[in-house]
Amino acid sequence: MKKLAIGVDIGGINTAFGMVDENGDLYAESVISTKKYPYVDDYSAYVRDLCDAMHAMAQSLSFDYELTGIGIGAPNANFHKGTVENPANLWKFRDGESDPDESRRIFPLADDISKCFGGVRTLITNDANAATIGEMIYGNARGMKDFIMITLGTGLGSGFVANGEMIYGHDGFAGEFGHIIVERNGRECGCGRRGCLEAYVSATGIKRTAFELMARMTAPSRLRSIAYDDFDASMISAAAEQGDPVALEAFRFTGEMLGRALADIVTVTSPEAIFLFGGLSKAGKLLFEPTQWYMEENMLFVFKNKVKLLPSGIQGKNAAILGASALIWQDTK
Amino acid sequence: MKKLAIGVDIGGINTAFGMVDENGDLYAESVISTKKYPYVDDYSAYVRDLCDAMHAMAQSLSFDYELTGIGIGAPNANFHKGTVENPANLWKFRDGESDPDESRRIFPLADDISKCFGGVRTLITNDANAATIGEMIYGNARGMKDFIMITLGTGLGSGFVANGEMIYGHDGFAGEFGHIIVERNGRECGCGRRGCLEAYVSATGIKRTAFELMARMTAPSRLRSIAYDDFDASMISAAAEQGDPVALEAFRFTGEMLGRALADIVTVTSPEAIFLFGGLSKAGKLLFEPTQWYMEENMLFVFKNKVKLLPSGIQGKNAAILGASALIWQDTK
Repeated sequence: MKKLAIGVDIGGINTAFGMVDENGDLYAESVISTKKYPYVDDYSAYVRDLCDAMHAMAQSLSFDYELTGIGIGAPNANFHKGTVENPANLWKFRDGESDPDESRRIFPLADDISKCFGGVRTLITNDANAATIGEMIYGNARGMKDFIMITLGTGLGSGFVANGEMIYGHDGFAGEFGHIIVERNGRECGCGRRGCLEAYVSATGIKRTAFELMARMTAPSRLRSIAYDDFDASMISAAAEQGDPVALEAFRFTGEMLGRALADIVTVTSPEAIFLFGGLSKAGKLLFEPTQWYMEENMLFVFKNKVKLLPSGIQGKNAAILGASALIWQDTK
Repeated sequence: MKKLAIGVDIGGINTAFGMVDENGDLYAESVISTKKYPYVDDYSAYVRDLCDAMHAMAQSLSFDYELTGIGIGAPNANFHKGTVENPANLWKFRDGESDPDESRRIFPLADDISKCFGGVRTLITNDANAATIGEMIYGNARGMKDFIMITLGTGLGSGFVANGEMIYGHDGFAGEFGHIIVERNGRECGCGRRGCLEAYVSATGIKRTAFELMARMTAPSRLRSIAYDDFDASMISAAAEQGDPVALEAFRFTGEMLGRALADIVTVTSPEAIFLFGGLSKAGKLLFEPTQWYMEENMLFVFKNKVKLLPSGIQGKNAAILGASALIWQDTK
């Protein structure tokens, strides 16, 4: 009988899910709103409605299959405990609501979802780790034992694989490479500190860079006609492709910051390859060329010209569902 | 029958070796000179004389035992290939001697030693990785699956363990945390770049710091009477214990540099503990207190107050032999 896993990708706006076999083929998919359930006391209804929608999807299949497990990618997920802990944008306290326990909101999501499916094995990890396992099972990292995945979205996520295994770390939260500090007293970061890599290298980071450059440079630029609030990172790619000097410098600088940080982390984990995934990585050589150049320029001699910088092999709209489902196939190997 | 492993620690001056059981008890030990064999064409004689001395030691035991394997700690060792590659201070070319292949000197040491002992399993890694495995098998990391070892000698070595396994990386050279760049255009490093962590945090690093501080500060200091060439790091500990202001500031600064770097790397591997090993770590709270403070001060919120900073449990003169022998016990588990 065909074996399928359900992959669930929980974002702040929507929760997408699908049924996937071990080759990464998708047999059914569906979506529910996440943002309809904004508060702590909406969490139970969210779980109930998500399970109902998953059952409806599962029943839509016209062939027999065995459900091997459910893999979930979610922000602030703890792989070891199966929980989502203090997510910034999910199931918040209502204004004025107080929290007896130092505002910790810990949701036992893996257990709750598993219960709706007769106790089937259910694993959870953050979205970047899920994408990393997706790359290992279905993507360009197949057969690799040591690699790094960098996911470039609103922030910078990462996943590290060593000896063929995901590094979750002692507390289940490893892989926060976006929060190494690359500039003392640098840009403010959402984490409350300053100078984190993701404040420079991410969709938000390159936008901040473009605004800094508009102040620093005198060259004309089409970007100067757009207000900060109306601006998104894709406008920089579009401008760079037209030769806009501010946009080109923004990519060069972003590649410099990323390349230097990668040279540092290569000394620690010595990966075979580094994959770039997500929105900003779609800018292609605008990003890859300076990143590669600065990575090699700053590399310790023993690692020079050894580490491949590659695009992800699971780009596309289903990458997050595939990544989450891969948690199950990874675990059964 | 009792099982024993031989641990071999190859330094630039001497090669020490001993016979160790799986509890870390040492039954015999001996030493030969390394520096008597300085050149590439001395390598064969070195291997022959080392094997002879190891056999003599093995025959000195008055009871029957089974030789489980030989573990070697050596500079620039490649675990995957069993080689020592381009070591800076071992088996060099003679002046004027040329190298047809871009000065690569690759010595198949694991195979060569194994052959002298009837093909017994022989593993090799660098000294910091050997110490790391020693900590895991005999020391304070017993039972830990995720930890970091920092060895503070002339340079800064490191070993990373994740999911209970040593991270050797794709090419076998992982764990060069001493060469992350902590100061752009900072101090010159032996690796040819600038601003590496070990140029600040190591016996050499704190000595450089003391000299910088003597220039920057006006406070009196007993260190001002010692020439650079006559100076070693232990003088800074001795002065700091007497309240010398330059020496105290040197430790504070060293702790700041190390603490910041540790906060960064914790975000990536999320260890249960970080162990400090080697000469500089013997300064105790002079080093541990500022390191801990700056590590926590710079830590991403999810990791705050979670990661233990601990002294190594295998300090002492046999640590390097124990560490090397632990390669064998680690591999048989």
